Amino acid sequence: MTSLDPRTGLPVVAMVGGGQLARMTHQAAVALGQSLRVLATDPGESAALVAADVRIGDHRDLDALRAVADGATVLTFDHEHVPTEHLRTLAGEGVRVAPGPDALVHAQDKLVLRRALAAAGEPQPAWAEVQTLQGITDLADSVGWPVVVKTPRGGYDGRGVFVVEAAEEAADLLEAHGSLLVEERVPLVRELAVLVARSPFGQVAVWPVVETVQRDGINTEVLAPAPGLDEDTAGAAQELAVRIADRVGVVGVMAVELFQTPDGVLVNELAMRPHNSGHWTIEGARTSQFEQHLRAVLDYPLGSTAMTAPVVVMANVLGGRAAEADWDGPGIDERVHHLMAHWPDVKLHWYGKGQRPGRKLGHVTALGEDLAEVRARAVAAARYLADGEIDPAFAFSEEH
Amino acid sequence: MTSLDPRTGLPVVAMVGGGQLARMTHQAAVALGQSLRVLATDPGESAALVAADVRIGDHRDLDALRAVADGATVLTFDHEHVPTEHLRTLAGEGVRVAPGPDALVHAQDKLVLRRALAAAGEPQPAWAEVQTLQGITDLADSVGWPVVVKTPRGGYDGRGVFVVEAAEEAADLLEAHGSLLVEERVPLVRELAVLVARSPFGQVAVWPVVETVQRDGINTEVLAPAPGLDEDTAGAAQELAVRIADRVGVVGVMAVELFQTPDGVLVNELAMRPHNSGHWTIEGARTSQFEQHLRAVLDYPLGSTAMTAPVVVMANVLGGRAAEADWDGPGIDERVHHLMAHWPDVKLHWYGKGQRPGRKLGHVTALGEDLAEVRARAVAAARYLADGEIDPAFAFSEEH
Repeated sequence: MTSLDPRTGLPVVAMVGGGQLARMTHQAAVALGQSLRVLATDPGESAALVAADVRIGDHRDLDALRAVADGATVLTFDHEHVPTEHLRTLAGEGVRVAPGPDALVHAQDKLVLRRALAAAGEPQPAWAEVQTLQGITDLADSVGWPVVVKTPRGGYDGRGVFVVEAAEEAADLLEAHGSLLVEERVPLVRELAVLVARSPFGQVAVWPVVETVQRDGINTEVLAPAPGLDEDTAGAAQELAVRIADRVGVVGVMAVELFQTPDGVLVNELAMRPHNSGHWTIEGARTSQFEQHLRAVLDYPLGSTAMTAPVVVMANVLGGRAAEADWDGPGIDERVHHLMAHWPDVKLHWYGKGQRPGRKLGHVTALGEDLAEVRARAVAAARYLADGEIDPAFAFSEEH
Repeated sequence: MTSLDPRTGLPVVAMVGGGQLARMTHQAAVALGQSLRVLATDPGESAALVAADVRIGDHRDLDALRAVADGATVLTFDHEHVPTEHLRTLAGEGVRVAPGPDALVHAQDKLVLRRALAAAGEPQPAWAEVQTLQGITDLADSVGWPVVVKTPRGGYDGRGVFVVEAAEEAADLLEAHGSLLVEERVPLVRELAVLVARSPFGQVAVWPVVETVQRDGINTEVLAPAPGLDEDTAGAAQELAVRIADRVGVVGVMAVELFQTPDGVLVNELAMRPHNSGHWTIEGARTSQFEQHLRAVLDYPLGSTAMTAPVVVMANVLGGRAAEADWDGPGIDERVHHLMAHWPDVKLHWYGKGQRPGRKLGHVTALGEDLAEVRARAVAAARYLADGEIDPAFAFSEEH
């Protein structure tokens, strides 16, 4: 039946992409008796620094994909940039691809997702596919300016998303892409995310709904569970995520990013892989998203998604002052030292990547009872790692 | 000052030994932005299957030790079998060795430990160093038969430990070793263990006292915290462990194995590395013993040792019926599948080693509120992995 590692009798999951998601998936694989096989583009990538079985190659190169899939139990992804046609070719050659190309395209192409949600009657912003500037104006006539213009493919972390006050602002973009997605700018209360996992057998597991806090389109904090979210809305959001998972036939972990508006939740977009909004699950849930992704793509039964503490906050460390070229303050080793001295119960995850301003370099997780306290702790720790600055509220005391 | 990885700006810990302790230490290293460098004797060893930087060589070969230490920040151990003289040589050549040879010898040589504890006035069984059979009889005249005869070096998991009813039973052993340790057989209530970590700076952290359940001298279960242990005894045991850590100058994690008797606790032996009695800390404590060992040997500040649940039980998976040559039941992949179906909240740690009867192949951890329930769950899951048999109390229900 499936390919097993002859040394261990256990599966071999191959992951396309050598970033931090692959790095953390390898950690989870180790506990399950496995060792993640990684296709990285460079030996210095985050996962390539720590995994035993690293292949170097481009995720757009069909032969590189064939090579990493050869002898593996299943092929999965740390990002969504693999060409759909390559995945169809591999699937046709008998490679188990999870999520499969027909599911993954909903996370790769925002227009495909909008059409599928419309067909299913699921809640989403008013939208239109446009090939002309007049098309943008037409939608704005109905929903009002500004509108949000998105490139259908290739965007993440806020890239490829533009708020425009007039159609002409999108002229270059339209010329470059030919076709664009235009959406109403929704009356946003906040952003939420629901993480769900689905196995080929059809088993589905869903974690509590979280709030994702963004700055400049990049997630900075995740609050679990979403503070003050009423049970009905939370339950409805979870059910929505499960319905979408079933409808698109995802295999693996999927993040459903939601806009919360005064009238309910609307689907923003999907990610079909472990996702930044689920990093809190490493310490904060009985089963982490990384272990669950492995279980799901292997068609293992899924693990418990129960939380391990009443409140969990994850804060991303984005390259800040300390990642700038002229930084002459404490290096990362010294900053980690101070972090540990000051916050002995904050959990660090550092990705080993080169430091550049704005880049996701790591994250920290704090757990506890009181949201304000837990959040302040996580944010202050992340800020110290990023900027080498201590928040006055967390100034080092004399004994440190 | 210290050697840092130029790719990440973070330390490189080199560990001698490629077993499951190195494997789980690598998982912890990944979160800290590091990648454990491993000296394994064979590429199929547990840690060698999952680590990115594996050197193959013998831990008794000084040149192999030199090579793995070269450029590393610090050299540490997954076992205690490295010759003391090699460690002295390396330390003399400027290698940071943690724990250092003068500390480690207390975990390598039971006679050295007995002498040190006697000099410190710490509680231990009545003992004698003997070069003659008469020496054994002399101790027995004072404490009664049977007595326990131990080889000073090389024993673990019950090896090198013999209960004898007459001195003659130890004749061959004495001839082979020249000198033996003889101890009273203490009136054992149960065995306890205290795990402690100490940094070069002198910071010490201690986890709650646990009960270690043994079968044939091999640990099968660890119950955290030790059930029914009164606060005074627990506190005294923790203080004892901290005193010993300071006295022997250990750097890293140290397990103090204790005999609980009607009159209090007595020190059995020490291990200076992450230890089976601390595997529960991966999910059960805010800082795992593996992360803490890395922090300690790197002189990072130590992490919180707070428990994450009221009751945590770790059960070892020892190779059983399913590891026998004629086993024709479900293979390990299928057993893992059933494990996950049946116990969605039991955490698996499988070491990837070849399966042989009696060998430590993995462990499982369960967390909860009620000791009897949590323990039954962990033991049943471990037994199923080992023997392919479901405890009747946990029989599969119809829906599985």
